[in-house]
Amino acid sequence: METIKPLREKRNTAILLIHCPDRQGILATVTEFLNKNQGNIIYLDQHVDRQEKIFYMRVEWELDGFAIPSEKIGEYFATLIGTPLKMNWKLYFSDEVPRMALFVSKMPHCLFDILARYAAGEWDVEIPVIISNHELLRPVADRFGIEFHYCPVTAENKEEMEKEEIKLLKEKNIDFVVLARYMQILSPDFVKQFPNKIINIHHSFLPAFAGAKPYHAAHERGVKIIGATSHYVTSDLDAGPIIEQDVTRSSHVDTIQKLIRKGRDLEKIVLSQAVYKHLQRKILVYNNRTVVFN
Amino acid sequence: METIKPLREKRNTAILLIHCPDRQGILATVTEFLNKNQGNIIYLDQHVDRQEKIFYMRVEWELDGFAIPSEKIGEYFATLIGTPLKMNWKLYFSDEVPRMALFVSKMPHCLFDILARYAAGEWDVEIPVIISNHELLRPVADRFGIEFHYCPVTAENKEEMEKEEIKLLKEKNIDFVVLARYMQILSPDFVKQFPNKIINIHHSFLPAFAGAKPYHAAHERGVKIIGATSHYVTSDLDAGPIIEQDVTRSSHVDTIQKLIRKGRDLEKIVLSQAVYKHLQRKILVYNNRTVVFN
Amino acid sequence: METIKPLREKRNTAILLIHCPDRQGILATVTEFLNKNQGNIIYLDQHVDRQEKIFYMRVEWELDGFAIPSEKIGEYFATLIGTPLKMNWKLYFSDEVPRMALFVSKMPHCLFDILARYAAGEWDVEIPVIISNHELLRPVADRFGIEFHYCPVTAENKEEMEKEEIKLLKEKNIDFVVLARYMQILSPDFVKQFPNKIINIHHSFLPAFAGAKPYHAAHERGVKIIGATSHYVTSDLDAGPIIEQDVTRSSHVDTIQKLIRKGRDLEKIVLSQAVYKHLQRKILVYNNRTVVFN
Amino acid sequence: METIKPLREKRNTAILLIHCPDRQGILATVTEFLNKNQGNIIYLDQHVDRQEKIFYMRVEWELDGFAIPSEKIGEYFATLIGTPLKMNWKLYFSDEVPRMALFVSKMPHCLFDILARYAAGEWDVEIPVIISNHELLRPVADRFGIEFHYCPVTAENKEEMEKEEIKLLKEKNIDFVVLARYMQILSPDFVKQFPNKIINIHHSFLPAFAGAKPYHAAHERGVKIIGATSHYVTSDLDAGPIIEQDVTRSSHVDTIQKLIRKGRDLEKIVLSQAVYKHLQRKILVYNNRTVVFN
Repeated sequence: METIKPLREKRNTAILLIHCPDRQGILATVTEFLNKNQGNIIYLDQHVDRQEKIFYMRVEWELDGFAIPSEKIGEYFATLIGTPLKMNWKLYFSDEVPRMALFVSKMPHCLFDILARYAAGEWDVEIPVIISNHELLRPVADRFGIEFHYCPVTAENKEEMEKEEIKLLKEKNIDFVVLARYMQILSPDFVKQFPNKIINIHHSFLPAFAGAKPYHAAHERGVKIIGATSHYVTSDLDAGPIIEQDVTRSSHVDTIQKLIRKGRDLEKIVLSQAVYKHLQRKILVYNNRTVVFN
Repeated sequence: METIKPLREKRNTAILLIHCPDRQGILATVTEFLNKNQGNIIYLDQHVDRQEKIFYMRVEWELDGFAIPSEKIGEYFATLIGTPLKMNWKLYFSDEVPRMALFVSKMPHCLFDILARYAAGEWDVEIPVIISNHELLRPVADRFGIEFHYCPVTAENKEEMEKEEIKLLKEKNIDFVVLARYMQILSPDFVKQFPNKIINIHHSFLPAFAGAKPYHAAHERGVKIIGATSHYVTSDLDAGPIIEQDVTRSSHVDTIQKLIRKGRDLEKIVLSQAVYKHLQRKILVYNNRTVVFN
Repeated sequence: METIKPLREKRNTAILLIHCPDRQGILATVTEFLNKNQGNIIYLDQHVDRQEKIFYMRVEWELDGFAIPSEKIGEYFATLIGTPLKMNWKLYFSDEVPRMALFVSKMPHCLFDILARYAAGEWDVEIPVIISNHELLRPVADRFGIEFHYCPVTAENKEEMEKEEIKLLKEKNIDFVVLARYMQILSPDFVKQFPNKIINIHHSFLPAFAGAKPYHAAHERGVKIIGATSHYVTSDLDAGPIIEQDVTRSSHVDTIQKLIRKGRDLEKIVLSQAVYKHLQRKILVYNNRTVVFN
Repeated sequence: METIKPLREKRNTAILLIHCPDRQGILATVTEFLNKNQGNIIYLDQHVDRQEKIFYMRVEWELDGFAIPSEKIGEYFATLIGTPLKMNWKLYFSDEVPRMALFVSKMPHCLFDILARYAAGEWDVEIPVIISNHELLRPVADRFGIEFHYCPVTAENKEEMEKEEIKLLKEKNIDFVVLARYMQILSPDFVKQFPNKIINIHHSFLPAFAGAKPYHAAHERGVKIIGATSHYVTSDLDAGPIIEQDVTRSSHVDTIQKLIRKGRDLEKIVLSQAVYKHLQRKILVYNNRTVVFN
């Protein structure tokens, strides 16, 4: 039977994400390394933060015909370039499909948006498990054939529950976690285990209206624009590195209910766009800020 | 079992949508009629097109305590106000749930967005049937428990197929039709049977790039912003009254594939926002333009 | 000699801005009052805050043919409607040209934008004086033929200087004040004399980054969107009722200098749009929020 | 006397804009050339159009300490890299201040915006002359101390007048021309003399509403968003390479007059942003499209 045609094309490529102290010749060194070994570059973007003197780069090249075997690329790159140039770098292969876990509570709009993209083949991702502190959204998980795990976190059992969650994430070989309007705060211990690997959506234009009930606060303040912010989770609530933000106009005619409704459309798109950038390995984090390549 | 909490509140109200030649006192006449009969107004918006001298109005009031019985409101309004003032008017009741049919082809993003809102209780709507010229999206319909009807339209059988579709729509008491990236052009005869009751999404910022392959055309032209447009279908292709539009930035780095991907997020939100406005009876059409109340 | 054609049309109208506790029939009462006295309504917009139960309205009608003489309208309205219905209302006439004072420091972009609109006849306004704590922008004032008053405010002489400024504003019959990137904080005593009559531009998307150096703070926080906010000044710094806001995208490539540059374009447009709304008497303030009519 | 502090910093740099057929190693070759000769790169951005197989690049480096004397850079680059790699390239020096001529008719808003930026030191540019087919804006030119040249073009004298204009532009050593709402169509002969050196602002979101009276057309069509487009002028009216576009929301309440007013704010900002990109030598044109570097 015909299936929905995925939007993405399969490619057999390697991706390097690099940041390091800036100095002359880094770009030439890296591109020369790839060129000399017959690596056909299909994406290259770089950025220099001249104030902080940091060099950032994302480069992707085809593995077909590349002189260094895939399993040796990391070693060669480290020896010849990464270590001498004091680079912080990560190597990815486009045929490794990342494994994402979703955490949800009671609101389904972000969950539906992500699962629809998953089902439609928009993203190269696997979703082995959905975890929730409520049973409410189990039928949605069932509808898309995804395992649903109920973890009723309370103030009393939080430590224990998080241990169970972490155990489950490890068992499932989860690469990163998406909080799709999950209404619990993760403990610093949990966060520490997934550095820059937990993506949250906050329903305001951060840093405005951090914390609870941002639409109520926005209404109270009488702002003329509302927003949503996706960010990596750090132990500092709502203060992690921002990945994506978007806004829409509001006015005196908008009740809190209307703001919540408008905001949902922002939240789901902003969260999904952040997830997609993460899946493409287009995000670098440094000094609590992100470089998000095009 | 607990179910997902709908975003909307049930209300027992009547809604009047009016347009007529402008003259002094219309607003006072209508509001006085409601006030005298103990109709508590919970929404009122009006607009005067001073160039064309047309008065537009949407008013909604509570039926509890209203002196005129619901089944008599139309008659009384016509006799006392509508006919003397040469009004074009429609009366709706908020407890009548509109019945919507979806037409789709192969692309699932708009369909998923609509069904997710339906499943999440965002809208007061019933979806008795999904019609498609391909079998591809039947599993999506199944997943949400909605009847799927396969109508393989070809150039040869179009007249016959449309008859079958219209028959089905009548049987299901369909109030309006949403073309959720349906890749067939409806005949003028079909369109005539649903005046201002067929909502389409065009994947460009109309009137730019009407017709086929707008993302290819946008790429070719090198525009710096792309858009999507929802509109009522008329017999004039892509030229019906515009309901909603939105845009996003593009640049030289965007390939056609990237434009298509970005555009999908626009299309689904713009279409769903138009459907929501239609469901709320907030749209008036006059002279091939819309008045969309807040 | 031909002069630049103003964008605005002269009209001979009266404008009522009203807010009061909501109750049945207010709209009918006001429109009936105007209709009975042959007042041809050319603008009407109203809003009900159903949570706070407040009714807001702006209505504008032609004075030609209106049965009540202009100088009596206020008295009649008060007696017949305003007082019985406990209204807060203000009456304006479109042939009264508001008198605006500008306060500036060293940055010229907002000043130039306002003076260009003034010179081009975009606004119905008079600008009798520009006040500054620096001499730097005097040549700009000279260029547009506007009186420039130098008030070198310091921590020591602030009270005395403000007295001088207020005296000057009174002498010049100033109706409202625009702080066009004025880098001094006005004292509560000054502010108290011009309630909802001092418009400021803050160079961030408030309430994010209130206070000094918002572009530095935005850069530090790594936001993906920056903004500007125009608001009425209250004694609570950067916390007055918001009139208008706008935003633009930023990214990791933007240095602080680039943010400042991008922000200037936002600031000048957002401030000028707020001033224009104020000039049109389209803003109502209630509970530290604005109703800005269309 | 203190003068307005320019936003820009003086720098002593060279800029290369390059496009050529894509092949392995171009980036490495260019950066190696600069590095070997002690050229400290302060900006580098590149783009590969993989469909058309074209490589685009902008690189800027400090001349202090660069081993090749400024007047020899072009020759060396051509011999060693440009010619062998079949490059299309241009070399600029940041201490060369471009000379811009303005063409205007009767509307002052774009002119004021440009002159304000000029006077405020926002741009590194000289404006030796303003040319107009009307006398109306002469006082604006006078106010900013810029020569104003009256060229009353008619259908009959167009060829002769354009000759006079071109002669004047040559005499003044004009590098590029900005049409700041100039309401005359330049002849193909005129345009040919300034390839990708004439910037126009069209008051619509092109390709929608090309030609005359776009706001009237937008109103007639009932669009929900209006726009403005800056582009290089080619002999094909309103069809040249797009540099920048922006949009704002409109609705049924907007009369044509209101659209015109809203549009002015778009037009002036979009035009000025295009001029600024041009001044920074950040625009490459290829196949009637632009690459606009960040």
